[in-house]
Amino acid sequence: MKFYDCSTAPSPRRVRIFIAEKGLDIPTVQVDLRNGEHLTESFRKLNPWCTVPVLELDDGTALSEAVAVCRYLEETHPDPPLMGMDARDRARVAMWEHRFEIDGFLAVTEAFRNQARGLKGRALTGPDGADQIPELVQRGRGRVERFFADLDRQLAGHPFVTGERYTIADITAQVAVDFAGWIKMTLPPDHRHATAWYDRVSQRPSAAT
Amino acid sequence: MKFYDCSTAPSPRRVRIFIAEKGLDIPTVQVDLRNGEHLTESFRKLNPWCTVPVLELDDGTALSEAVAVCRYLEETHPDPPLMGMDARDRARVAMWEHRFEIDGFLAVTEAFRNQARGLKGRALTGPDGADQIPELVQRGRGRVERFFADLDRQLAGHPFVTGERYTIADITAQVAVDFAGWIKMTLPPDHRHATAWYDRVSQRPSAAT
Repeated sequence: MKFYDCSTAPSPRRVRIFIAEKGLDIPTVQVDLRNGEHLTESFRKLNPWCTVPVLELDDGTALSEAVAVCRYLEETHPDPPLMGMDARDRARVAMWEHRFEIDGFLAVTEAFRNQARGLKGRALTGPDGADQIPELVQRGRGRVERFFADLDRQLAGHPFVTGERYTIADITAQVAVDFAGWIKMTLPPDHRHATAWYDRVSQRPSAAT
Repeated sequence: MKFYDCSTAPSPRRVRIFIAEKGLDIPTVQVDLRNGEHLTESFRKLNPWCTVPVLELDDGTALSEAVAVCRYLEETHPDPPLMGMDARDRARVAMWEHRFEIDGFLAVTEAFRNQARGLKGRALTGPDGADQIPELVQRGRGRVERFFADLDRQLAGHPFVTGERYTIADITAQVAVDFAGWIKMTLPPDHRHATAWYDRVSQRPSAAT
């Protein structure tokens, strides 16, 4: 296996944390997003969507999309389980992970990419350009506020997003909260449950990645 | 189990097709999206994100997010498998399903909700209002064109999205193609592979739902 990463980017960080929690050691290639290495012909052959993370298997299969890469690692290295314990639990983890990707991670992405000077003409990920749309900055920020509130509400009754165990749903939310720092948004202090959770997950060794 | 559906809406149709392919018969409740039933207090108690599909389990657990609902049904009713056959295959199916949700389904959603007269002030799904942003109509349509091209390229070598078997990746793509009809976009005739695939999947009995 070979893991295509970019150590400064939030999207592959979801997989980096997952790998660290599994205690795996996978040969890693850094892709220089800043200088457009993901847009080169050779990277496109690996992943036509021009995104990291990518996990290349020994038979040459290239898996992109963080959740799909994590699913492969979960099935091939089941211990510790990070995607749920039984059918109901796995579905709940998938639900929260998906929701926090859309409402958290993609909301921050929307605000960030439509604002950053360095991303003019590149407001969408992928090989095609896209003009920035200034209205999306405010809209994205509003969505992030709601994500913070949802996260706080969900964490009122238990230490992690779906209950007693740390899962991929925590990872996606945690990476989204840190990514929100890029647009100068942080968990409001009155979101006590989410703040306590954030301190908890940030102290895990995997968070240092 | 109880399935909360809206028979005219594309998002729960992904689960309707999945249920039909599994040959399941699940008691179904129609939620009247047109008259805002998903925004009522009682529906919010079931799903605070105010979306269908929702699968309510016998213990009261409410699963939302199409992919999470399908995961539960796949694990509890494994035959026929619709989410892959082994670890590698399941990861590939998850990758394509996720990619076609973002690039296909959500791209059509973006163009549609920012244009439809009846959705003024409701450009995003969920309980909060959001103003329409006219630029997103064209941007969404451009993304759909790219989705059509990606779909055609992926289908050049095999009958279904991930190979020889029909999976949830086909379902998401198929529902996105039909949903694109709502914004008057259809697969271009020169996309021969995608067009042949579309005819193939549309002839399955599950497509009638």
